[in-house]
Amino acid sequence: METDMERNDIPRATLGRLPLYLRFLKTEVSTDTISATRIANGLGLGEVLVRKDLGKISDGGRPKIGYKTEGLINDIENALGVDGVTKSVIIGAGKLGRALLGYNGLWEYGLEISAAFDREIKKVQKDESGKKLYPMSDFVKYIKNHGIKIGIICVEVEEAQSVADVMVDAGITAILNFAPCTVNVPYGVTVKREDFALSLAHLKLSAEL
Amino acid sequence: METDMERNDIPRATLGRLPLYLRFLKTEVSTDTISATRIANGLGLGEVLVRKDLGKISDGGRPKIGYKTEGLINDIENALGVDGVTKSVIIGAGKLGRALLGYNGLWEYGLEISAAFDREIKKVQKDESGKKLYPMSDFVKYIKNHGIKIGIICVEVEEAQSVADVMVDAGITAILNFAPCTVNVPYGVTVKREDFALSLAHLKLSAEL
Repeated sequence: METDMERNDIPRATLGRLPLYLRFLKTEVSTDTISATRIANGLGLGEVLVRKDLGKISDGGRPKIGYKTEGLINDIENALGVDGVTKSVIIGAGKLGRALLGYNGLWEYGLEISAAFDREIKKVQKDESGKKLYPMSDFVKYIKNHGIKIGIICVEVEEAQSVADVMVDAGITAILNFAPCTVNVPYGVTVKREDFALSLAHLKLSAEL
Repeated sequence: METDMERNDIPRATLGRLPLYLRFLKTEVSTDTISATRIANGLGLGEVLVRKDLGKISDGGRPKIGYKTEGLINDIENALGVDGVTKSVIIGAGKLGRALLGYNGLWEYGLEISAAFDREIKKVQKDESGKKLYPMSDFVKYIKNHGIKIGIICVEVEEAQSVADVMVDAGITAILNFAPCTVNVPYGVTVKREDFALSLAHLKLSAEL
């Protein structure tokens, strides 16, 4: 189903939930049509919220029937802009950095990790998956040449802030931080923390352990 | 501040947000008192929601003043049960599994990863941090002896379901799944997916890239 709506018209909060809907539709739904109610229940979200969200990105909803599942998936993918590929890079090619570099679940979001950088790497080399690991001295040039805007911090706590600074100086505007600490960035740069400890704590509570 | 409230009286949804409040109070708040409004704004949550949540775990809130920061931290920690340590184990000692095994941000949630298991490991060995890596043949015995209830899946997609089955059979009741797929478990077992791709997609949208 086509939609005339522009990405910029979609509220941030709605955009932020689209990957959730997309994953749910792709992995949990096997019916041809799907109601906002079922999506809301499946994801533990409010029905009104889901109805509003979907109304922003699709005009395919029909009373009592709901959405055509395939059509809704298309509309969400359009809104997410997963037709193209957005590249990102890692700084910190330790165990975690290399594990993420080899991770293959990114394509469905139109994302890719192109390369990793590490101060311990002296000469360009490839990992098992064929992706390249670069010395830090190549970082700025690489970012500029490839128009990279997303950086992933995979270094230890002690280095996280200086790595964030390097990223920002090179033109990175969005940072995913795996170090268990906060980093300070100038206005206009977005940082999110990937907090494994928090996920495990959530799990423990949910399971009432 | 003491509270007579029992952990079981706290709604799951509230419990699930406590680690967020705790992290915020510990890392972002330097004042002696803190209002629910400021916490809500800081975390991007609704004020009514935060007020209700905190009311469930603390009776220290005062009109116009808010909570004593230290007292609220104590109340949340009591509710979370972070006085003791809950142990967990990993199956899959590849790059990601070993990276998580060495992760040191878990203590603040009263959590610990005790060991990792992998079918490629034939003899018990230690990683750099001194934690032990075991063959799969030791798994059931270890789980029983240590009363482990939380398992972390760090294997490839193809093996994730069979690893989940092994965990459930051994008595694990809470699973954190890092493989980019869903796994089926019987009623009574809680599974959460740790979805790095989703986090990166969220970041991309938040930064309007």
